Amino acid sequence: MEQFDLVIRGGTVATAIDTFQADVGISDGRIAALARDLAPGVKEIDARGKLVLPGGIETHCHIAQESASGAMTADDYDSGSVSAAFGGNSCFIPFAAQHRGQSLREVLEIYDTRAGPKSVIDYSYHLIVSDPTETVIQQELPEVFERGVTSFKVFMTYDKLIVDDRQILDILATAHAYGGLTMVHAENNGMIKWMVERLRAKGREAPRYHAPSHPAAAEVEAIGRGIQLANFVGAPLLFVHVSTPGGARLIAQAQMDGHAIFGETCPQYLFLTRKDLDRPGAEGAKFCCSPPLRDRDTQAALWRYLQNGTLKLWSSDHAPYRFDASGKLSAGANPAFHQIANGMPGIELRLPLLFSEGVRKGRITLNDFVALSATNAARMFGLADRKGSIAVGMDADIAIWDPEARWAVTHDALHDNMDYTPYEGIELVGKPVTLLSRGEVIIDAGRLEARRGRGQFIKRATFKSNQEPLGMGSEFRHTSDYWNA
Amino acid sequence: MEQFDLVIRGGTVATAIDTFQADVGISDGRIAALARDLAPGVKEIDARGKLVLPGGIETHCHIAQESASGAMTADDYDSGSVSAAFGGNSCFIPFAAQHRGQSLREVLEIYDTRAGPKSVIDYSYHLIVSDPTETVIQQELPEVFERGVTSFKVFMTYDKLIVDDRQILDILATAHAYGGLTMVHAENNGMIKWMVERLRAKGREAPRYHAPSHPAAAEVEAIGRGIQLANFVGAPLLFVHVSTPGGARLIAQAQMDGHAIFGETCPQYLFLTRKDLDRPGAEGAKFCCSPPLRDRDTQAALWRYLQNGTLKLWSSDHAPYRFDASGKLSAGANPAFHQIANGMPGIELRLPLLFSEGVRKGRITLNDFVALSATNAARMFGLADRKGSIAVGMDADIAIWDPEARWAVTHDALHDNMDYTPYEGIELVGKPVTLLSRGEVIIDAGRLEARRGRGQFIKRATFKSNQEPLGMGSEFRHTSDYWNA
Amino acid sequence: MEQFDLVIRGGTVATAIDTFQADVGISDGRIAALARDLAPGVKEIDARGKLVLPGGIETHCHIAQESASGAMTADDYDSGSVSAAFGGNSCFIPFAAQHRGQSLREVLEIYDTRAGPKSVIDYSYHLIVSDPTETVIQQELPEVFERGVTSFKVFMTYDKLIVDDRQILDILATAHAYGGLTMVHAENNGMIKWMVERLRAKGREAPRYHAPSHPAAAEVEAIGRGIQLANFVGAPLLFVHVSTPGGARLIAQAQMDGHAIFGETCPQYLFLTRKDLDRPGAEGAKFCCSPPLRDRDTQAALWRYLQNGTLKLWSSDHAPYRFDASGKLSAGANPAFHQIANGMPGIELRLPLLFSEGVRKGRITLNDFVALSATNAARMFGLADRKGSIAVGMDADIAIWDPEARWAVTHDALHDNMDYTPYEGIELVGKPVTLLSRGEVIIDAGRLEARRGRGQFIKRATFKSNQEPLGMGSEFRHTSDYWNA
Amino acid sequence: MEQFDLVIRGGTVATAIDTFQADVGISDGRIAALARDLAPGVKEIDARGKLVLPGGIETHCHIAQESASGAMTADDYDSGSVSAAFGGNSCFIPFAAQHRGQSLREVLEIYDTRAGPKSVIDYSYHLIVSDPTETVIQQELPEVFERGVTSFKVFMTYDKLIVDDRQILDILATAHAYGGLTMVHAENNGMIKWMVERLRAKGREAPRYHAPSHPAAAEVEAIGRGIQLANFVGAPLLFVHVSTPGGARLIAQAQMDGHAIFGETCPQYLFLTRKDLDRPGAEGAKFCCSPPLRDRDTQAALWRYLQNGTLKLWSSDHAPYRFDASGKLSAGANPAFHQIANGMPGIELRLPLLFSEGVRKGRITLNDFVALSATNAARMFGLADRKGSIAVGMDADIAIWDPEARWAVTHDALHDNMDYTPYEGIELVGKPVTLLSRGEVIIDAGRLEARRGRGQFIKRATFKSNQEPLGMGSEFRHTSDYWNA
Repeated sequence: MEQFDLVIRGGTVATAIDTFQADVGISDGRIAALARDLAPGVKEIDARGKLVLPGGIETHCHIAQESASGAMTADDYDSGSVSAAFGGNSCFIPFAAQHRGQSLREVLEIYDTRAGPKSVIDYSYHLIVSDPTETVIQQELPEVFERGVTSFKVFMTYDKLIVDDRQILDILATAHAYGGLTMVHAENNGMIKWMVERLRAKGREAPRYHAPSHPAAAEVEAIGRGIQLANFVGAPLLFVHVSTPGGARLIAQAQMDGHAIFGETCPQYLFLTRKDLDRPGAEGAKFCCSPPLRDRDTQAALWRYLQNGTLKLWSSDHAPYRFDASGKLSAGANPAFHQIANGMPGIELRLPLLFSEGVRKGRITLNDFVALSATNAARMFGLADRKGSIAVGMDADIAIWDPEARWAVTHDALHDNMDYTPYEGIELVGKPVTLLSRGEVIIDAGRLEARRGRGQFIKRATFKSNQEPLGMGSEFRHTSDYWNA
Repeated sequence: MEQFDLVIRGGTVATAIDTFQADVGISDGRIAALARDLAPGVKEIDARGKLVLPGGIETHCHIAQESASGAMTADDYDSGSVSAAFGGNSCFIPFAAQHRGQSLREVLEIYDTRAGPKSVIDYSYHLIVSDPTETVIQQELPEVFERGVTSFKVFMTYDKLIVDDRQILDILATAHAYGGLTMVHAENNGMIKWMVERLRAKGREAPRYHAPSHPAAAEVEAIGRGIQLANFVGAPLLFVHVSTPGGARLIAQAQMDGHAIFGETCPQYLFLTRKDLDRPGAEGAKFCCSPPLRDRDTQAALWRYLQNGTLKLWSSDHAPYRFDASGKLSAGANPAFHQIANGMPGIELRLPLLFSEGVRKGRITLNDFVALSATNAARMFGLADRKGSIAVGMDADIAIWDPEARWAVTHDALHDNMDYTPYEGIELVGKPVTLLSRGEVIIDAGRLEARRGRGQFIKRATFKSNQEPLGMGSEFRHTSDYWNA
Repeated sequence: MEQFDLVIRGGTVATAIDTFQADVGISDGRIAALARDLAPGVKEIDARGKLVLPGGIETHCHIAQESASGAMTADDYDSGSVSAAFGGNSCFIPFAAQHRGQSLREVLEIYDTRAGPKSVIDYSYHLIVSDPTETVIQQELPEVFERGVTSFKVFMTYDKLIVDDRQILDILATAHAYGGLTMVHAENNGMIKWMVERLRAKGREAPRYHAPSHPAAAEVEAIGRGIQLANFVGAPLLFVHVSTPGGARLIAQAQMDGHAIFGETCPQYLFLTRKDLDRPGAEGAKFCCSPPLRDRDTQAALWRYLQNGTLKLWSSDHAPYRFDASGKLSAGANPAFHQIANGMPGIELRLPLLFSEGVRKGRITLNDFVALSATNAARMFGLADRKGSIAVGMDADIAIWDPEARWAVTHDALHDNMDYTPYEGIELVGKPVTLLSRGEVIIDAGRLEARRGRGQFIKRATFKSNQEPLGMGSEFRHTSDYWNA
Repeated sequence: MEQFDLVIRGGTVATAIDTFQADVGISDGRIAALARDLAPGVKEIDARGKLVLPGGIETHCHIAQESASGAMTADDYDSGSVSAAFGGNSCFIPFAAQHRGQSLREVLEIYDTRAGPKSVIDYSYHLIVSDPTETVIQQELPEVFERGVTSFKVFMTYDKLIVDDRQILDILATAHAYGGLTMVHAENNGMIKWMVERLRAKGREAPRYHAPSHPAAAEVEAIGRGIQLANFVGAPLLFVHVSTPGGARLIAQAQMDGHAIFGETCPQYLFLTRKDLDRPGAEGAKFCCSPPLRDRDTQAALWRYLQNGTLKLWSSDHAPYRFDASGKLSAGANPAFHQIANGMPGIELRLPLLFSEGVRKGRITLNDFVALSATNAARMFGLADRKGSIAVGMDADIAIWDPEARWAVTHDALHDNMDYTPYEGIELVGKPVTLLSRGEVIIDAGRLEARRGRGQFIKRATFKSNQEPLGMGSEFRHTSDYWNA
């Protein structure tokens, strides 16, 4: 063995399955050795008393994306990737969103110009399909796989994004035929519209009415329907931002029946409640997201579904709309609940919140944390051959954590381009202190050491070719025999 | 780094989560390094084209144990451990069975004398409690933990072993108070007795009537009851040899509700059916085990529950009774179904069957195989700090597999002390070719290289202190507030 | 007591709860007395050896209704009511279907002109709402209650009838606010469209492909969604023509949870299967209905849900399209599956089929038969103060059955305006021989004794004011607090 | 028609299905006519403004029965039947309890001597089987049917009554073979014993600890097990005094699956809570019954299961132990919870409580009340050919209720032989004012008009030959094929 480019020395290494003391030898951007007492590297990092973990993989965030109404998110691939990196992430997969009329190739090219020159960490896209014409389905979508984009997202609500059940079947079946994975924002559009109308008719316009306008039943219904649609064509389906115990239960039951149905949840549903919408004046607008914040019972139930493996992904759903006229207050200083851009920031806090409230409070193990921060995401989205774990040969995407660091969240100390954080003042234990991307130190001691644009676009494997997520075998049961009719 | 005692070179290493090319450096019986191109060791093993996996951990086998009727199993810790080793296992946990009237200390001392001088691999015991007197519960059981025995087994059927619901609560609550895990053979004793009586009254005595004498409903009922008992006291409970879809479903539902309820299944329920009981003459006796073999639909369902993580343990339930007067035919050449010793051998084939039918046929991934062969067992039974994975610092318990080896099962080639195998003639792909225990090669090229008695008794951590099994968080939901009454 | 206008003497009277020997004294069109040995009436009917039952109430039939494509059903209120009467029904509730653009008042007036001059039995309408504009919802629908029309139907599929989830909520909530009941044809429109496209794309056009074009999953999904929508607004909902065990199970679970969710099934789902679609040439077209015929397992399951009270209504879904160019063959002699008018006749056989296969074969009791033929319908649809049972003061709507009559179904002997029956040749036991409507004999000895137009429009009570159906308490649990938001 | 012996004139008659104005003509102890304006009878009762209902049938009460400890209940067939009659009941079915060692014939003869000379209303017995020897099962139990005793009860707890699972199977299978119905007190004996031990060990002895000593989980487990046992042999099973939502849900699910599984609940579980056990001193002892009182959520859930037909029987479980040394205080003035005789009185209030809180408060309809007070019981227990409804030819067992009577419960005004009522002071609306048994007025204007011993033993039909309960078809699905083995 030649001398390693870098040795991370003396830390506690953890994967989704193991925890052990070892030095990590890195060469050519990859993990070359795990051992005790490695010979000195060209460079050295002292990780004594620290945790050496796979760099986080953030798989649900909106970066340089126009909102439905055309406004751009506050974060582009510069601030977005930097904030992600400070939050312990060495890879992310924002959305590339098709506008109606656009070809999928066009969409990806646009996002390539947005991401390529700016991202400090590696990236890919999930492709939002909002206009599944025959051409899109039969020609363009298959071509997307050649570019290494293998996951797709559909919306069951939102005027400019919504696709109907027939279109969802087209996307599910086609994506699946090529080995891809479909993700879905599942809320019943009719229930939401009906509630919005009735609330408005009664003059209930304050931000707090955002919560009843997106009732829990709307999510439960849409998850139930999504499961039926996916199982009908035998395709895998991932429900993002699950916010209801009823929805999580349906997902668990589908898994129990052997279907490739998956769920994700996000920090806001475990750490905030709809009471946050009651803050005075327009403050509640900061807490408007969809699905909306729920209540304490929901928090407890979602923890349970994280713990028992029903929900395998933990993402931020970072949707940065500033608390000003460019974002939350675009309709004025006192916007009605239905005029407020949906979403909240969180890309930099996703992992610290889970570490502090999960690992440190004994709700999950350190290995569970690794699984939720990186490993499950890598397996779900075709990155497992390169990222998401610490093993010989993998990209040296590594986050070094100080498990004892005590700090309080303040927006001032964050690195996104937002003007608030919904977690202001929360006290946390544990913090990522150093981040490596392909062996290169890009964050250290609170400083960004990387140049813009150093992040690479990663061609991802298909869902099918990939290792399957924890606890899910390689053969999914396909219930549908529609093609045998 | 000094020179390694041994380097396993050029293999494909797999853990429950990762698969990668690496050399494995071993010193002082432990894994010291994982890297590409390690310097030559004192010894070398060429593993090119081979899989380098954690040695299997067999957690359900009857070795040197008297049957309920007093007959000794055909395998002692010599033949039993050797057969296990040839089957790719570097550790096992047979039972130490309390007879009524015995103190638990006495039981463990007896088994120490049986195991210590003979075992070629490391071992521990699960302690079967059949006589939970007040002294046993309040004094002896806590003391057992000091010896590093942290798992217990109870029977809901079998005359000399059965404990009633009140006794199960005592054992569950006490074991749990000290961090232990309880396992249960779950079949409704009344249903079995009632069926045996009726079958006999109708003159239905052939081996094939063993199946209806232990109906599926008996297992489903007992699993349902066991879940109620465990949840009542908030204790974890492991159902061994789950053989019914209905039972597995109850376990899945309990997990979905956040309870620490676990399940194991065994090869016989996935590879054999009750039709095997119909073989001519007394041949069916070879296939009598409890719970009994079921049918093809059951096989498919149990595969699904293995795949989706409901059943986390895969064990042999090796219960070696020879097809002669010492075992199956103790009541004569044509025994009635209720006179046949229950159980069948399988310790040497547990892993080859799963590898060939699971991994090679695409039902599970290689990582799933590792989880089912060793990692889950290590986590469930307090061995995860030393065994069950391949990571720096762990015991060098390693099985090297030739994934392409094609062979047919014949009893002649097995190493147990039995005179038949229920899998005679089955053709398999993949085979363990070399086995290391704490860095020592004990099997190589079909030869045993170890001396009897080299295996060590392993003090196990408690279930509670241990890493939790895959997909299960560290905080189990305790539903019971009986102590708050 | 004065002399009765009519005495039905010596029969066995049955209600949904009692069976007893009694004479029935009738005066002024109402049941005046039930007793042994009544004094002679002005007229007498000898019912010795006969069953004296409440006249059937048919609540799902299409009479003088334009199909979605504009074609009129083969039966008008003359042939339709006569056929119903020969089938033992003294009351029916066909649909009055709104076309888009029509006011509800206009719809009802049209149907009044169709029904009034022709019907030989009493009638009401369920109002199909296909165009729920703001005016319809806020003004017209409430006015409909004043006319005594208190039940509504919506479609989740069919191009010219379909309403979306938001519209369904409007109808459910408004109907419920006035005490009305909503019925729904529940099939997922997107699944159907998607399957039709794919089948056609593969050239699968024969009638047999009608079945896979309306998959079971489409019904199960839509029933699940309908339950969510109804429970969301706390409104009762009746699923018509339930054809899947999965759908029935969802209904049963909703009832178990205390919701006012109801189900109906029809003879075709219990007596025919999709194999009937395989008949040679275009013959399969006779068996096209939606939801489509299923299989034998479905038949057995639906019997069970009828027996256990999950499905409380038994209706014909009589949809008469002749096997000629006016109906089934409007697209030619060899129509593609998607060109065939959906529906089949059955108004005259609904009760004989249930009596023969249900009561005579021991699947249900005679009292269950009465409940399913009349009593449940009367309670569900606001008729229970006048019809649906045999009790003093009620309309003398009475069907006298010969329980021993043996006959074979031939279309020639039926009285509808169709040219075929799907039940041709089936042998039955039991037949209605005499029918009274408000004390008047309208069918006797195979002859129609009534003049056209004698039937009366019945103003129905609301669902809410009405007695609740068997086994359902008067207080339905309203889960929704949407209005408290 | 001759002159009727009696005419009940001008009342509102209700059955389980109909409500109508009619006079009731009675001759020879039977209902002879239902009509408007009957000719004057020999006697007349003015029922204007009153309800004319079937006399109640009380099917769960302990009369002249020795407790497990040998003490006799405070009520014999004199005071017990009189109290029942004042409560609107014209028939009851107490238990005849086998002591171990007794033959079944002996048991019935003993109870005949207790009941025959004393009862003022008609009666039968449920036979408690506590000693199911081979002789009992094979010879004695079949003979019991010849006496017209067709229902049996088993206990899953209580030392001197408990039978084990094998014995329950014997009883279920044998009773079912002859068409009988088995009832079960379902609580897990082991859980109860274990809790009693632990509570006592902690010095928790007050009456309030009775509740945790019989935890909800004990009932849920035992109901689950009972369902498994019954379904295994394909026999019907009735769970008495269901006190948990979890248990009721299991019953509902079994019914949904087509099994003949039934449930009963009692007033104490809907009107009292475990807080009543907290009353000062030994007062709590008055509220000790098994299963114990629960909480408000349980009350609401049980109402729902009554409303939706899951629980078809409403009984008192009248178990009269006086609040003195003969009963509740047999162990002294301050008995420990486990020394208190289990049970409470209620035979006279069962119907008034349900009428006032159910019908008058709109929770159930008047017809539901009739079903729960008499009709369902008659159908379940083989009395439907004579009792439980108002129809021509049936026994004139009629309760005339004043629906507007307002009164408060005081024990002084009751007619049992107890010294307290748990419902003291509750204000009710509605009261039975006149009771007829076989046409004879036995209660009128608050006075007993009957002589002791006029009540007759009623030979009951078998469950199988009988009409089935509301909403349950005549063919129960038998899942078991044990006999095909």
